[in-house]
Amino acid sequence: MALIVQKFGGTSVGSVERIEQVAAKIKKFRDNGDDIVVVVSAMSGETNRLIELARQINERPVARELDVMVSTGEQVTIALLAMALIKIGVPAISYTGSQVGILTDSSHTKARIMQIDAQNVRKDLKAGRVVVVAGFQGIDEAGNITTLGRGGSDTTGVALAAALKADECQIYTDVDGVYTTDPRVVPKAQRLEKVTFEEMLEMASLGSKVLQIRAVEFAGKYGVPLRVLHSFKEGPGTLITLDEEDSMEKPIISGIAFNRDEAKLTIRGVPDTPGVAFRILGPISSANVEVDMIVQNVAHDNTTDFTFTVHRNDYQNALHVLEHIAQEMGAREVVGDVDIAKVSIVGVGMRSHAGVASRMFEALAKENINIQMISTSEIKVSVVIEEKYLELAVRALHTAFDLDAPAGTAE
Amino acid sequence: MALIVQKFGGTSVGSVERIEQVAAKIKKFRDNGDDIVVVVSAMSGETNRLIELARQINERPVARELDVMVSTGEQVTIALLAMALIKIGVPAISYTGSQVGILTDSSHTKARIMQIDAQNVRKDLKAGRVVVVAGFQGIDEAGNITTLGRGGSDTTGVALAAALKADECQIYTDVDGVYTTDPRVVPKAQRLEKVTFEEMLEMASLGSKVLQIRAVEFAGKYGVPLRVLHSFKEGPGTLITLDEEDSMEKPIISGIAFNRDEAKLTIRGVPDTPGVAFRILGPISSANVEVDMIVQNVAHDNTTDFTFTVHRNDYQNALHVLEHIAQEMGAREVVGDVDIAKVSIVGVGMRSHAGVASRMFEALAKENINIQMISTSEIKVSVVIEEKYLELAVRALHTAFDLDAPAGTAE
Repeated sequence: MALIVQKFGGTSVGSVERIEQVAAKIKKFRDNGDDIVVVVSAMSGETNRLIELARQINERPVARELDVMVSTGEQVTIALLAMALIKIGVPAISYTGSQVGILTDSSHTKARIMQIDAQNVRKDLKAGRVVVVAGFQGIDEAGNITTLGRGGSDTTGVALAAALKADECQIYTDVDGVYTTDPRVVPKAQRLEKVTFEEMLEMASLGSKVLQIRAVEFAGKYGVPLRVLHSFKEGPGTLITLDEEDSMEKPIISGIAFNRDEAKLTIRGVPDTPGVAFRILGPISSANVEVDMIVQNVAHDNTTDFTFTVHRNDYQNALHVLEHIAQEMGAREVVGDVDIAKVSIVGVGMRSHAGVASRMFEALAKENINIQMISTSEIKVSVVIEEKYLELAVRALHTAFDLDAPAGTAE
Repeated sequence: MALIVQKFGGTSVGSVERIEQVAAKIKKFRDNGDDIVVVVSAMSGETNRLIELARQINERPVARELDVMVSTGEQVTIALLAMALIKIGVPAISYTGSQVGILTDSSHTKARIMQIDAQNVRKDLKAGRVVVVAGFQGIDEAGNITTLGRGGSDTTGVALAAALKADECQIYTDVDGVYTTDPRVVPKAQRLEKVTFEEMLEMASLGSKVLQIRAVEFAGKYGVPLRVLHSFKEGPGTLITLDEEDSMEKPIISGIAFNRDEAKLTIRGVPDTPGVAFRILGPISSANVEVDMIVQNVAHDNTTDFTFTVHRNDYQNALHVLEHIAQEMGAREVVGDVDIAKVSIVGVGMRSHAGVASRMFEALAKENINIQMISTSEIKVSVVIEEKYLELAVRALHTAFDLDAPAGTAE
């Protein structure tokens, strides 16, 4: 007897047949005596179809009206799923974001949830109904329809779970859990039973796209246990919790994340004066370019080198801005490189273990992989290397930190 | 400077191009200084697509969820039209039925409007915006989404016009007005400049499908001037008002309506006792068959003949029920005929003119058309004739009542 919020994405509800499969899955939980709130996305392709239609009118449609339009995608899914549940004898009722009382700010197409008035949902649960809620959407104080931006359905699920004090928020996806690293790169990668919010956040931001960062942050903030599961395969998935287990049992490193979407920019021979970082990064930020890693070496000869990474899509833009800055500041030169990759080891276990970084560097050195940049946080060490060594580096680290599945056990 | 409510149906907003044409039309009115509220239907085909999708889950989907689903059709149109208006420089804002505050009862898929809280709409008009409202939908007191049933968008338009005390409610369609009769039957049929609500109601109920009966009733009740116009051709259309002009100027008959959807049933030799009509029509009504014309002849030999018409689709059903009743009542026989047609002359002018009916009968007699049934109301005389004479009868009456367009003036 638990209260569970389940979120199914666009692929899981991509056809009438799949919606019926989802309904059958929900029925199983109900037959076990669980109370179920379901959050669904638009059927796969539907959101893009609607945006395409809007673009035929205007390449940049008004955000308020785009939200009115796009929010119909989930509205269709909730009705279909409620119908499918009722058909197999499960009492069910659908709610739009507005009906459930998901109050957001007024930032159309990227609104943030402010508050949820889940009173209606509680009443329906008490009456024995499965409550089907439209993900990704809400309403602002003036009654305008808002959307939370892409992937917002995960956030709806977590926010509802928090408001209802649910026992678990289950996110159904096309993978059966969170892995130690991408199994396409390391066939010996293992599914994690458990991972902490912090680790999940580091992994998500480093390119493991299982969950939306915002949803993980939200779940961590409100302590909502989050579970990632496969929509159509049985299995326990991966539980994301607050718990940091005893480091005796917990491996030091939970996973290896990587990212090939970045590019590196260096400005050389910058006069080493106070405020230099701001003078460089201020204009970059004004150009709407997000910066990820930043490294500044100690000065010699009163000049310093300053290196940072940006998304590859922003590389040309950033390079242009930086060349302008270099001229202004009298710097020696600007160099850049897009053929880089970032590899990170992530784990709350490293908090209590010294020497994790050096073990990483040793493993890379053994493979003759040169490290171009290093950046560390409390539970993560990231390095930038030449892109062509990426797979080699990930596999070497996976083995070095004892993450490989024992022979014969890999799924 | 008038406040005009304009309603565009599914065909008028059936594509992005048409929506842009509608936006351009609205802009013209705005440029004239008029305040405009627009009511739109779903893009043509969209409602059927959604219902088809629901039927893939369940042949008889739950009405509440069907409304959640089907109401998305208009929601897409309002967003697109608002975008199209904004694109050409006309400030605009969209509202769903729920947002505008169209309160209905809870009869899902056929709800009735109870009240409109048009406060938001008034504010937006004052701020210089065109307000685009989703037709066909509302919300009940509990916040459930409802729909008004097919053709409900006309009703939304009229109800909004009444709530806003608009100067005129314009219904844009694929015809350029209301005609004296169907121009496909009588090429000399003329567009009427004006027609009264009563006449329009009789004509609509007799098979002229220009407007929804409910919308006309509503407009009549609240005295909302209604105008029928062509969506994409210029022209004054037909105004439907309360005014009954002086009968000196007004023709006696406004139009000839007809209907070939009925069938006739007669029960012969029924013992003439009190309550006979109820004993016959009670079971018919219980079988969900609607009865149109009813004629009972004076009794002779203590028995009477009782004749009524039903929709042709209900004929077999009604015949079956009637045969059962005949046996119970000891009636002589039951006979039926589907090859009939109803022809009616309609006009408020006949109130003050005697001899209208006899002029009708004379015109039909001249053509040797036998009259099978007669039924009259204050502004209408209907006759049932053999179906094969329908066109001949309509043309004869059109001429007899001076409705033919003068030679060379027909459009």
